[in-house]
Formats: sequence, C-alpha cells, structure tokens
Amino acid sequence: MDVRGEASSAGWARWGTAGNAVLPESATKLLAQVLELAPPPPVVPLPEVTVPGCELDTAVLDALRGVVGADHVLTAGTVRARHASGMSTPDLVRDRQGRVLRAPEAVVRPAGHSEVLAVLAVCSGAGVAVVPFGGGTSVVGGLTPAAGRHVAVDLGRLDRLVAVDPVSRTATLQAGLRAPEAARLLAEHGFTLGHVPQSYEYATIGGFAATRSSGQASAGYGRFDDMVTGLTVATPRGTVRVGRAPASAAGPDLRQLFLGSEGTLGVITDVTVRVRPLPAATHYEGWRYESFDDGLAAVRRLAQDGPRPTVLRLSDEVETMIGATGSGRSDGGCLLIAGYEGADVRSTVEAAARVLAAHGGVPLGEEAGQHWARHRFDAPYLRDALLDAGAFAETLETAAYWSRIPEVHQRVRHAVLDALPDGALVLGHVSHVYETGASLYFTVICSPGTDPIGRWRAAKAAASDAIAATGATISHHHGVGADHRAWYATEIGAVAVDLLRAVKRELDPAGILNPGILVP
Amino acid sequence: MDVRGEASSAGWARWGTAGNAVLPESATKLLAQVLELAPPPPVVPLPEVTVPGCELDTAVLDALRGVVGADHVLTAGTVRARHASGMSTPDLVRDRQGRVLRAPEAVVRPAGHSEVLAVLAVCSGAGVAVVPFGGGTSVVGGLTPAAGRHVAVDLGRLDRLVAVDPVSRTATLQAGLRAPEAARLLAEHGFTLGHVPQSYEYATIGGFAATRSSGQASAGYGRFDDMVTGLTVATPRGTVRVGRAPASAAGPDLRQLFLGSEGTLGVITDVTVRVRPLPAATHYEGWRYESFDDGLAAVRRLAQDGPRPTVLRLSDEVETMIGATGSGRSDGGCLLIAGYEGADVRSTVEAAARVLAAHGGVPLGEEAGQHWARHRFDAPYLRDALLDAGAFAETLETAAYWSRIPEVHQRVRHAVLDALPDGALVLGHVSHVYETGASLYFTVICSPGTDPIGRWRAAKAAASDAIAATGATISHHHGVGADHRAWYATEIGAVAVDLLRAVKRELDPAGILNPGILVP
Repeated sequence: MDVRGEASSAGWARWGTAGNAVLPESATKLLAQVLELAPPPPVVPLPEVTVPGCELDTAVLDALRGVVGADHVLTAGTVRARHASGMSTPDLVRDRQGRVLRAPEAVVRPAGHSEVLAVLAVCSGAGVAVVPFGGGTSVVGGLTPAAGRHVAVDLGRLDRLVAVDPVSRTATLQAGLRAPEAARLLAEHGFTLGHVPQSYEYATIGGFAATRSSGQASAGYGRFDDMVTGLTVATPRGTVRVGRAPASAAGPDLRQLFLGSEGTLGVITDVTVRVRPLPAATHYEGWRYESFDDGLAAVRRLAQDGPRPTVLRLSDEVETMIGATGSGRSDGGCLLIAGYEGADVRSTVEAAARVLAAHGGVPLGEEAGQHWARHRFDAPYLRDALLDAGAFAETLETAAYWSRIPEVHQRVRHAVLDALPDGALVLGHVSHVYETGASLYFTVICSPGTDPIGRWRAAKAAASDAIAATGATISHHHGVGADHRAWYATEIGAVAVDLLRAVKRELDPAGILNPGILVP
Repeated sequence: MDVRGEASSAGWARWGTAGNAVLPESATKLLAQVLELAPPPPVVPLPEVTVPGCELDTAVLDALRGVVGADHVLTAGTVRARHASGMSTPDLVRDRQGRVLRAPEAVVRPAGHSEVLAVLAVCSGAGVAVVPFGGGTSVVGGLTPAAGRHVAVDLGRLDRLVAVDPVSRTATLQAGLRAPEAARLLAEHGFTLGHVPQSYEYATIGGFAATRSSGQASAGYGRFDDMVTGLTVATPRGTVRVGRAPASAAGPDLRQLFLGSEGTLGVITDVTVRVRPLPAATHYEGWRYESFDDGLAAVRRLAQDGPRPTVLRLSDEVETMIGATGSGRSDGGCLLIAGYEGADVRSTVEAAARVLAAHGGVPLGEEAGQHWARHRFDAPYLRDALLDAGAFAETLETAAYWSRIPEVHQRVRHAVLDALPDGALVLGHVSHVYETGASLYFTVICSPGTDPIGRWRAAKAAASDAIAATGATISHHHGVGADHRAWYATEIGAVAVDLLRAVKRELDPAGILNPGILVP
C-alpha cells in the first residue's frame, strides 16, 4: 500500500525496495580520494522505530471510520512512520536513525472523491490538518506540515482509469494511480502519457499534478502541467472542476492555480490528461561535446529551432566524469543524451544529428544512449548506495532563461563548494529544455560529517540564495514544500503571497490543508 | 490616440478607419434573397452625440492631473464617447444611433507603471472605478463596467519595446503597444511574435494578455497565453511581477491567474513574451473537402500527428458558400486554408499535403490561400458593410474536445437558427487547433428588425446555452466581459467563483477594477 518497507524492515529508510543501485568499486575509490567518507551508522529497523501513540479523539477517529470504513483508518506506528515524511536525503538520514519527526495521527484511505470531501469535512470540523499522500516521494519536505496534529490522506485506493476518449486523445485518471500502473492501463488502449520523471516507479498522477512534475521525456511530451486538460479537486468548501476544453479565454486558467498547489488548496482526486499513441519506434544515442558551453549551444539550437528529440540532456564536465567512472568511458568533455520516440523517428534522428554535429558534437552511438535508458531510474537509489558507503548525496534544481544558464550553473556550483569547504562534488546537467530556457539540475556529494543534515541545510541555503540572486526560479520540478518556502515567498513577492493566502482562506477556512507547506 | 473617429465624425461608429471592406453586389443580392434587409438608420456623427458632463469631484480630477499631468486627463465628450464601449455589433449599433450608454467621466493616460499604480491609488481612495483601455476592441462588453462612475485608463502611452534577449528569444513589451507597432519594433531585431488575431490592427499587447487572445497563426505560434513568460501587474495593493523562468514548479502558475483577468485583478503594464525569428518563407494554399466532417478529420490528423501548418482553418459548407460569393468560386464543399511560415517550409508543405490529400482533400492552389491572406483582417469591417446594407452580423466562438466538435457545431447552429425564425445565415469554421480539440467560430447574419440588439441578445443566449449544454467553453478567445458572465459562472462553478472573488477582494479591496466584468 505504500512505497516503504516492502523489502525488509531495514529497507524502509531507502528510496525503493529494489537493490538495483550498486556503487562500482571504482566510484567508491574515487570518492574516498576526494571526500572524507565516514562509516555509516547502523539503520534502525522499522519495528524498533518509536512513534508516539495516536492522539486523535475517539470521536474524530469514529467519524473518519464512518466515512472510509474501519479498515481504512490505520493507526499502527509502523504505518504512520511510513507516512511521516518524503524521500529527501535528510528524510532518509532521519529514517535510518529511527527519528520520525512528526508522524500523522492516522492514515486515512478514502475510496473516491466523495469520501475525500467527507474526510475534509470531518477534519475541518475537528481542526485536524490533512496531508494528501500519493507516492510519498517529495524531496522538498512537502509531506511534513507545520506543528499540530494531522492525518495523512493516502490516495492509494483512487487507482482507476476512469475514461479514455481516443478521438480527442484524452484520459481521465484517478489521483492515486502510480505512474507504472497508469502507463499499463493506458497501453491497453494504445496510448501513453509520456511522463517519466525519476520518481516514476512510485509517484502518482495526483502528485504529478500537485507538484508540477516534469519528466525525462519533457522535450517531446512536455511537462505534466502541459498535459493536464482538466482537474477535479476536493476542497473543504466543496468540489472544483476545472478544464472543459483544450484552451479557453473564459477567465483565468484555474487549472494552473491547483497545479503546483501541493495539497494546500484542495485534494486533487482525478486528472484529465492529453495522451499520445504508444510510440512504434524508440532510439537513444550519445554525443560528446568538448565543453558544457559547446553542448549548451547545440541543445539550445534544437530546443529553439528543432527538430526536437523526445529526451535531451547534457551533463557538465563533472557529471560526465563521475558517470564515466566504472563504465570504462573516460574521454572527458560533456555527455549529451538524445532520445527519440514516435511512429517513425529516423528522419528526426538524422536531422537532429546534423545540428548536433554542426555544433561540434562527436557521436558516441546507440550504446551510450541505451546505457542511459537502462539506468534512467537509478539516481535516487544511488543516494542510498552513497549513504551506505559513508557519503551524503542530494540534488537540487532550477530553471532560467538561456542567456542566464551559464551564470546560474557557475554560481550555484561555487555557492555549494564554498559552503562545503572540506570537499564536495557538484555534478550538473540540463535535462528539460524550452524555447526560452532550460532547467539546471545539480547533484551534490559530500562527506556527512557529524551533522549531515545541518551541513546540507547550509549548502542548500547557499545554493538557493545563488539561484535567487541570478533571477532563476527556486524549483523547476521538485516543488516548494517546506524547504523552499522562504525563497518562494521572495520569488513571487509580498502581494502574490497575500493573494495565495486569500485563496487558501476561501477554500480552506479552517486552514487544515498541508499547513506550512508552500504558503508561508 | 484611439481607434475611433480618425477618418470622419461619422466613421467613429465603425470597426476601423479604413474602408477596405466592400460587400460585393452578388453578396448583397444573395442576402436580399435570404433575409429581409432594412434600410439602415442614419449614423449620428460624433459631434452630435450627447454625453453627460464629467461628474468627478474636482479634487479627484486634480489628483489624477497631479499623477499624469493635466494634458493627460481628458474630459471632452467626444473622447469619453470613444472610450465608452468596445466593438461588438451591439456596441456599433448603439454608437450609430448616437446612444452612448455609460461613458467614463474622464480618460486618464498614464506614462508608465508607477503612474498606473498612482492612478489606482487615487481611484481606490475616491471609490471611482477604473477600466483599463487598450485598443478598445472588446466584443464581449468588457469595457462597460457595472453602474457607478468610472474612468478609462488608456494605456496608449505605454508603447515601448523595453528589452530584447536574442539568446533566450524573449522580449518585454509595454502593455499599450498596438500589435503592428510591436511587430515593427521586434522586426528591427529580426524577431516576430507571430500573434495575428483579427483585431491585429488595433489591439494591444496588454489586451492580448488580459483576454487570452488567440491569433490566426495559433497552430504554429500558439495562443498568446502560450507566449507569455512574464507579466508586470499594477494592483491597488501594489505591484505583482510573475514569471522568471520558462517553466517552474514553484507553486501555482500565477501568470495564468492574471492572463484572462480582463482588468478585474490589476492593470497589466508590461508583458515578457517568447519571440521567434522572422520567417524567411511563407506559403498559403487552399484545399477543398467534400464535407465538414471530412475536413475535420484532416485537420485533426495534422493537429495530433503533424506536421503542423502555421495557419490551419476549415470553413463549413455555409461559410464556404458565402465566402465564394463574388469570388467566382462555387464548387461547394468546405474550404481549408493552410499557411506555413518558417526558415524553410517546403518539406512541411509537402508532408502536410500528403496528409490533406489522404483525407480526401483536393488542392486549390496558392491563389486560394493568398486570397485568404489578403483579406485576413476584413471580417470585422464586413460587419460595418453589412450594417450599411441593412443586415446585422455578429460572431461568437467556443472550443471543445475533438469528439464533441461535430455536436457543438450542429447544436449551436440550430440554436441560433431557431432563435431567429424569420431567417438567418450561420457560418462556421475551425481556426485554432490543439492535440485534444479545436475552436469553433460562428458568424451570424440576420435582418435587424426593429430591435436588432434584443434579437441578437436572444440568439446569443440560445447559442451560449447550447455551448454550455455540450460541455464546451463559453469562449475560446473573445473573453468573458459582461456578456458571458452568467455562463462563465456556471462553467467554473460556485466554489471557483468565490475563489475569484476572494482574489479580487485581496488585490482590489475597494472593488474599483472593471466592476461587473468577468466575476459576477
């Protein structure tokens, strides 16, 4: 029913259940040369984790049981521990130590939209906060609300494909559907969503919408918010249904107010999305550029003038070097991955190759692309492997206009390196492109020291300050959560913060929805 | 300084100043066969139009003069009459009769963002409503607020290209820039916006944003809301600046709250847009389909699987027939226009032609396309020509998912015909396409009778009810204004209406911004 602890009681404090991320010995050696690795403390198994008892009034529990059934109001400590946080490295570090910061008093599992509405009514009346819980993969503290009692509303039972319109190429999916199951259901109709973020194996449709997710194939399929044509949202004030046409001039686009609202304005219960035919052909290949700037010029040209690959990512020199460790490749420069999906990709592959070569790219062939595709979901597991090896690894990301990308890349790198003076590796890549700009994604690997979370918080704050100083956005696809709240408020300004507060007051008068997340 | 009355004092009650819309004699004959034409009443020249005197307190006028300078607070009746309404046919009919419903007390012309803020402060303090005025081309009653005194804030002096970023391909344009001037300024840098609505000659950048405009080349360049990367908005509570990256997961997309807000949440003072290189090649051509359904299948295939023309429009049988009147073409069926703009369009033209032919299209050659391009801005002028000929012509539009397009087309047609039982022509076309659906645009020509506005109101209400009943949206690109308010409220639902009211209360506590428009 949830992502954690299925493999073993010690495995709950990890990204996933699979053991498919093994750090090559050569990588461990390299890390040991650069960083001071510390033997990791032992992982506290889940049954030994102490969670304070449920403090909800019996009347509230009974009311919730009346809505969803007694079997779907869970108060066992282990279940509540698994719903207490997301999957940032600080979350995982705490979990490994058996420190559950603020567990929900109960995990409530409604079966549909009307039960969600009824749960919100009970919680509004009782003043109990509600945290909508999908895949539990937040890496920005989006699942741990401000102080006060809360329940997690686990949407796992909202797991149906509600409707497919093959003529309009739309599908309505319930919010709790995990991405792989959504893909399987759509494939039965010959369609794909094309949304493949790194959290793919665990994340849910509702979570994608609530956090403005963006997937590895965004160059071809767009961001998740591009795909959404309609939403149903349960709020304490009632139901909101938005989006009844592909486009409209009927007022503000209210879909865009709930997309990215991170559970603070309502619980998204279903999402209508644009789908596309399953691609008949796929092709992945690698290219090498002498420098990040050379690669950026090529990537920008494809993003602005086409032809657009479906997947387009460019690693900087450090990420390319670390990625090459263990694979035998060590020709330096910067690795570019281009992926193509469609009915017939040959002519696009060839036309894009002419652009990539014209900008100094050297083709590395299909194996380099397939290697990336085989390992496309590995990075989050590698955080676990690195923690096991005595290192600390975490990621952060932003987006900016093309003219600012080089400066943002350098300033964020240096801000993190300056904040971790005893050594860190900062890996960077561009993996989402637009006509006017791109995302920048950073992986930081450092020694944990005695206070890994405190060290990370300082480095992350320095990186966030650098992002803000360059005029970039505080998140391209991770979201705001609790971790980015302060920078977010500065980014949108005081009037816009008040505007969001006014919307929240209107839809959530008792202030029960994910308090402390997103809106300061 | 404004769009009306430049040619002659009688010409103010017309779409534009040019006389480039002449109804062919054959068309007049055809109309006389179908409709009962009435000799039009004489047009009351502007100097004979009676406008009640300005009733603003001297203190308020002085305060406004203090902000923008005495030369830019205009109280002459003729100026106020020209700012009293938009350009719907009911507006033009009233103007022709010399009936100015509710003129602004004054026309205020600020020179920049800070002056707009100061004007809002004066008006908030005095309880005087503010109607932001760009090109004055609203066809949905968006410029005539609810009862009470108001001033028009004419943005004509905010007419600069503020910045161009050629690397990121973005440009910042002030809100009062007319589209042709914006195009000229961008062309100096080698760029185009690609936004060419029928109101192109008069409409402004700020108006495009405030109403979610969509242009004739939307298949290639997207809607105006797709182009916007950032906005600056002056509100009574202060300045809001939104959009600092091509995409973001930092909370709701607040740009999308101000786009389509129609002057009710703030005054948009500048807009940062994505621009593209001026196309080196353009190519327009026509195709003929046996039926609207055949043509729809072809258009849908191009919209969903490509290649996408830049312009794609399909007229139904009636529009094709009326359009052919006078041109000598009379081969029946449905006319499709495909336009291509880009660095090199040949391969796209050829690939699209294969799709168009595979769906039963018969090529009509370039002349049919060029004929459309030559007359692309004529339709609004033809409303004037039809009024002169003793007929009444007006348009309405919607958007829906592909699977519903045939039903929406038929139901709206029949609703209008039923509401005008003594005869009407209803012309339809698709001119904006998306992967999941399209717009439908209708032109209604009928005899005016003794109460043309009342007759139109009944027909329009019937059409709007039909649109709502099919689940389509009440507007694809005209906006809500005052005319669509009731249907808009039903479309978004009671909770969403309260949400918008809450946003308005927060940003506009005195309720001065375009009261009665958009939000009921």
